[in-house]
Amino acid sequence: MSANPLDCPRPAVKGPVIPGLMEAFWDYERALMEDDLPALDALFAPGPDTLRGDANGLLVGHDAISGFRGSRGGAPKRRIVATEVRALGAEHAAIVAVTELLGGGRGQQTQVWVRNGGIWQVAVAHVAISPPAFDRRIWRAVGDPLVPATGAGLLDGQTVAVKDLYAVAGQRIGAGSPAYLAQAAPEATAAAAVAALLDAGASVKGLAATDEFAYSLAGTNTHYGTPPNPKAPFRISGGSSSGSASAVSLGHAGIGLGTDTGGSIRVPAAYQGLWGIRTTHGAVSRDGLVPLAPSFDTVGWMARTPRLLAAVGEVLLPSAEDEPAVFSGLRTVPGLLELADDDVASAIRAALDGWGTEMPVEETSPIDPDLHRAWLKAFQVIQGREAWAGLGEWKGHGEWVGRHWDDLAPDVAGRFRTASALTDGQEAAARGLGAQARRTIRALVGDGILVVPSAASVAPLARDSAAGGGAIERQRERTLMLTCLAGLAGLPAVNVPLETEDGLPCGVSLVGAAGSDAALLSHALRLGGG
Amino acid sequence: MSANPLDCPRPAVKGPVIPGLMEAFWDYERALMEDDLPALDALFAPGPDTLRGDANGLLVGHDAISGFRGSRGGAPKRRIVATEVRALGAEHAAIVAVTELLGGGRGQQTQVWVRNGGIWQVAVAHVAISPPAFDRRIWRAVGDPLVPATGAGLLDGQTVAVKDLYAVAGQRIGAGSPAYLAQAAPEATAAAAVAALLDAGASVKGLAATDEFAYSLAGTNTHYGTPPNPKAPFRISGGSSSGSASAVSLGHAGIGLGTDTGGSIRVPAAYQGLWGIRTTHGAVSRDGLVPLAPSFDTVGWMARTPRLLAAVGEVLLPSAEDEPAVFSGLRTVPGLLELADDDVASAIRAALDGWGTEMPVEETSPIDPDLHRAWLKAFQVIQGREAWAGLGEWKGHGEWVGRHWDDLAPDVAGRFRTASALTDGQEAAARGLGAQARRTIRALVGDGILVVPSAASVAPLARDSAAGGGAIERQRERTLMLTCLAGLAGLPAVNVPLETEDGLPCGVSLVGAAGSDAALLSHALRLGGG
Repeated sequence: MSANPLDCPRPAVKGPVIPGLMEAFWDYERALMEDDLPALDALFAPGPDTLRGDANGLLVGHDAISGFRGSRGGAPKRRIVATEVRALGAEHAAIVAVTELLGGGRGQQTQVWVRNGGIWQVAVAHVAISPPAFDRRIWRAVGDPLVPATGAGLLDGQTVAVKDLYAVAGQRIGAGSPAYLAQAAPEATAAAAVAALLDAGASVKGLAATDEFAYSLAGTNTHYGTPPNPKAPFRISGGSSSGSASAVSLGHAGIGLGTDTGGSIRVPAAYQGLWGIRTTHGAVSRDGLVPLAPSFDTVGWMARTPRLLAAVGEVLLPSAEDEPAVFSGLRTVPGLLELADDDVASAIRAALDGWGTEMPVEETSPIDPDLHRAWLKAFQVIQGREAWAGLGEWKGHGEWVGRHWDDLAPDVAGRFRTASALTDGQEAAARGLGAQARRTIRALVGDGILVVPSAASVAPLARDSAAGGGAIERQRERTLMLTCLAGLAGLPAVNVPLETEDGLPCGVSLVGAAGSDAALLSHALRLGGG
Repeated sequence: MSANPLDCPRPAVKGPVIPGLMEAFWDYERALMEDDLPALDALFAPGPDTLRGDANGLLVGHDAISGFRGSRGGAPKRRIVATEVRALGAEHAAIVAVTELLGGGRGQQTQVWVRNGGIWQVAVAHVAISPPAFDRRIWRAVGDPLVPATGAGLLDGQTVAVKDLYAVAGQRIGAGSPAYLAQAAPEATAAAAVAALLDAGASVKGLAATDEFAYSLAGTNTHYGTPPNPKAPFRISGGSSSGSASAVSLGHAGIGLGTDTGGSIRVPAAYQGLWGIRTTHGAVSRDGLVPLAPSFDTVGWMARTPRLLAAVGEVLLPSAEDEPAVFSGLRTVPGLLELADDDVASAIRAALDGWGTEMPVEETSPIDPDLHRAWLKAFQVIQGREAWAGLGEWKGHGEWVGRHWDDLAPDVAGRFRTASALTDGQEAAARGLGAQARRTIRALVGDGILVVPSAASVAPLARDSAAGGGAIERQRERTLMLTCLAGLAGLPAVNVPLETEDGLPCGVSLVGAAGSDAALLSHALRLGGG
């Protein structure tokens, strides 16, 4: 195969000879291989109706297609090994080309061409190539299974995507950081939660991506890439349990095992339309899990059905000695829904309208907005302090991070930099405020279910997330104000997936009293029609 | 999501209203979900010009498309979440539909419709869906890496697909058999060849599929499926080092580590257009490898370039103490080329014409055809006897197979059944004839390079291979007559990839004297322009 695919012999055209068409086809191929953006733009039909789709999703309109091209840095190198041409009346034609990728594998490119003012342009394009061995944005290792079940039970035949923070026997923990992975030794035994799932009949499908040290809610790991969000193409996955969420959303695994410190289950579940639970702080063993902030870290998981979500709860949660809790009603906090974007708030209001016919919905007293912001700040200080300097047996990431600043993604490094500067005095003040918040939030929940948006928005567009800026920062802060409540109070929260009017996933969290996890799961099962 | 995707609400159509078009689209969707083959056939335009492509390849003509549908057993269940319609003149239209798979993930279906006699039919279709986590036809487990390098050297940054017969530390050996895998324990240490590659800087990408116990040349493992052959869509991969070959062909890994007893490197390399080497019997350690027939088993590997093929040789082959061998010339055996199909023989003759300008080509004395058939029979008896009852330290598969007949694929079980009935007398006679063959073949090779087709044909169509029958059997026997020569003589053979006039991969083996492996690799490097 030639180093320059454009030097390869052209395959015989199968189909009619249409004046100018194959010349335009080969102009396009040249422009694609040379990433000649103006030429590519000129060869696609202008206007809002032009279509281009690939494995990442369907782009509609010349502008969207042009924007995509400008940001991807060129197409995979390939040569054309077959061309089938079909005339579609006088002014249109289809060309189906088989491509051979210089990196291995094949592809197919289907194009509908239109003659505009005598010039052939692409009106519709569909591009497909052989996928890689696996998607490293989602997985670090994957098998059939990677680790077999050790027992039989409630989870027979189920598969688990294990967030790359949990110990899996024979595998190293990467924690979303290639540098951390490079110095990790294989684990001798499985984390407690992983072992319990294996004992119940599930197998480990693979090790799933996480934001670096789980210190983000976006899923935009710069080392491995952002996992795809199949329910919301071109949008971020949500994190930090990002790989587990995408694996479940894509059907690669049934159960997405993750963690939730400040929203790392609830946010990806909401962004991807999954059921998810963050458990009561301390209710499920964290043995064999790399901590972030032990005061808030919890085990959590996601699934595509509330039935499977609840089944995992039966395996991982402590068995209830008493009757399961019965909730007195749903509770909303004035002003909380308003932290969410209108489309998300509308979806939640519609859900509440439905649920309200089954059980009472009451308003709690409000949380003072300034106090609420102070709570979030306290959460972030405690989280940062423990992430850097540890707590009790956990010695923190500070010592390691201090030797690896350049190995970290800028956003995560920035958080650790801030954390490293926190003082004992700041921590003490935050812990005081945090304890007060915990009492207040627990009182708001009482014996009911607090209804809180799981995230302030639908999944942001990946390009907006990458560009950053004030709007994205404010959206992130509103999400954190919502998610930190269960974090500060150590309470369980189940994400119920909803849809906006535009058909995008969003979610609402049902927050219950400490230890009400199983009851919340039962409630979710009823809501989900399971 | 509804259990019956046809009950889901239909998305708003974006684009013009074209009389009858969307009705036909939804008729098609119903027929697809119900696998209503007559309706699907009627909704595709008749004749040889209709196109349908997906990840497996491009089908041309209504008959080919209909045949494919009849054999696949229905499409994955899905619902339609978006439809974009574009008019292409008066009699054609394009519909791009976004699909949401009930099993998770998304897809895109691009269709060009044509109005024939007032009826809308599909003229061109391109279907794509989210791929699975990984292709279990190729891999059993795969990672980034699955096992990191232990050293640095000539293979820095290279990745290896390890045939699932080799020990990899922490992983079980499956040998292409789910039942064998189920009772396997994780290996404590890596096989010698795997350890040497890791020490030289390569990492293990994953565990690659093999025919069950490597007892086949087809690659059609009934438990895991036949790995795809990207250079020859709809054709078999070749085996038994099938997963390693497909992984290299697709660019999933650079090096495909396999074994060759009676052609298990040469055949998949020829079918998939790869460079491959079967080493001199005993030259590379087989420690940590599940044997088939120790008298013939050899370590081998494949690559997409002769340079990488040779680099692996520098790592795995014993270092030459003398000057590397210089070959006196190329040798052909009268009648051997005629065992290959005409297209393959023509490709080899064309290659020989080119090579003949660089070094002498001479004809050896012929092999009597009856004797040649007897040699093959002797090879099969020795192979079968050792596969069943072992040799020396190797105790054979017989004891295990005898307890697992029902777990084996019918073709492999049939071979073991035949092997189990072989007598001491048959084995003794075969070993006598085998020794004679070995002397004769080694004399034919002498200090030259024997030129032998790597397989008698291009990769058979998967459907022909599955149907079996006399023609396929005779083709397989002709391939075995070619490959058994190096097997019986214990000689090294390098597959040089060639192409038939139709553009399909085939291959020719360069067979050298015992121990000439490195010299053969150097020669291949020169031939390949490396």
